[in-house]
Amino acid sequence: MNQTALFKLSYGVYICTSWDEGNPVGCIANSAMQITSDPATVAVSISRNNYTHKCIEDCGHFAITVLAEDSDPKLIGRFGFLSARDTDKFAETAYEVRGKLPVPEGGIAYLSCKVVGKMETSTHTVFLGEVTDCDVLRSGKPMTYAYYHEALKGKTSVNAPTFAAASEPADAQKEVWVCDICGYEYDGDIPFEELPDDWVCPLCGMGKEYFRKK
Amino acid sequence: MNQTALFKLSYGVYICTSWDEGNPVGCIANSAMQITSDPATVAVSISRNNYTHKCIEDCGHFAITVLAEDSDPKLIGRFGFLSARDTDKFAETAYEVRGKLPVPEGGIAYLSCKVVGKMETSTHTVFLGEVTDCDVLRSGKPMTYAYYHEALKGKTSVNAPTFAAASEPADAQKEVWVCDICGYEYDGDIPFEELPDDWVCPLCGMGKEYFRKK
Repeated sequence: MNQTALFKLSYGVYICTSWDEGNPVGCIANSAMQITSDPATVAVSISRNNYTHKCIEDCGHFAITVLAEDSDPKLIGRFGFLSARDTDKFAETAYEVRGKLPVPEGGIAYLSCKVVGKMETSTHTVFLGEVTDCDVLRSGKPMTYAYYHEALKGKTSVNAPTFAAASEPADAQKEVWVCDICGYEYDGDIPFEELPDDWVCPLCGMGKEYFRKK
Repeated sequence: MNQTALFKLSYGVYICTSWDEGNPVGCIANSAMQITSDPATVAVSISRNNYTHKCIEDCGHFAITVLAEDSDPKLIGRFGFLSARDTDKFAETAYEVRGKLPVPEGGIAYLSCKVVGKMETSTHTVFLGEVTDCDVLRSGKPMTYAYYHEALKGKTSVNAPTFAAASEPADAQKEVWVCDICGYEYDGDIPFEELPDDWVCPLCGMGKEYFRKK
């Protein structure tokens, strides 16, 4: 069984949000798909380890914000690799309330949903949401997970369904520095030590001190 | 509520197969996603109108074959727009049995799965399958639904979750001929009437007689 076959499935990159007693919370989701057209329903898979999972359970509503290729990659670092347990992800993220749910700025479309069903698996819950409100916010090409991996050198969060230990090959030729927070790998032409002191991880926005040599 | 927001979700293009009393059956699926990593499970959404749905229910197993950008578009026409009720889709489709399930030739990877859970919705069943066997078959870029729509001018099957009546805008400038079987729209530079008699729909392989002027 060659599990790299699983990497051939195609996904988008979304921020799945909800409310935590009046405060906005959210996490990155790749596994979202439309299930029925009338009424429109979508399914999203969320790890039970994610704080957002608990909030969706309590609130009974979630929103999917669709990220685009030109969306700020820091959104992925912030919502994909930090936990709402110890970080207010919305402290530096502007958002609007659309369809009664928080929608972070930077996306191209949103779907506000009411939970109408769910399926439990060993680690994730697949929430089925009836779309109560949705709109396109601006033009832009939806970001695919493949684009994120190729263009942004994104790594996979351990809470993502698509995470598999030691599945990410490295380029042995180059000196590579890894962000401890989000796993971003720096292998730019400027040696890492020569990057300015205020340089930050392009993915999650953390400083140079969070990087270690691979 | 602007339902075109739903078109911003990203999907792949897959053939979902199973057995019908020893005979291979299958249909196109866009809605497939990995749910857990250990054990690896995937969810796939199949309309209860699809004959393949009944076969997955009876057999308890399904396979996902991942199509690539260079896969023969006729596979999509055959498996996406014809029904196994009145067509033997495998009559002209070579396949191998992999992980005890039929895997049509032309894909780049397959996942053979055992049904371990399901979620019913108004029109579709979301099957949860534990991956019992999978492999990469060849190199190639996975076909996304966006690529299919843009490059192959694909239309949406009425059984697809992403189908919405009157949601596909037409180019009013050009004379367009539509395939009655799969919805493929011909608007090439050669006038349709001047195409050779043995010309067939590039999507589903049906002859000129199945086309009507839009």
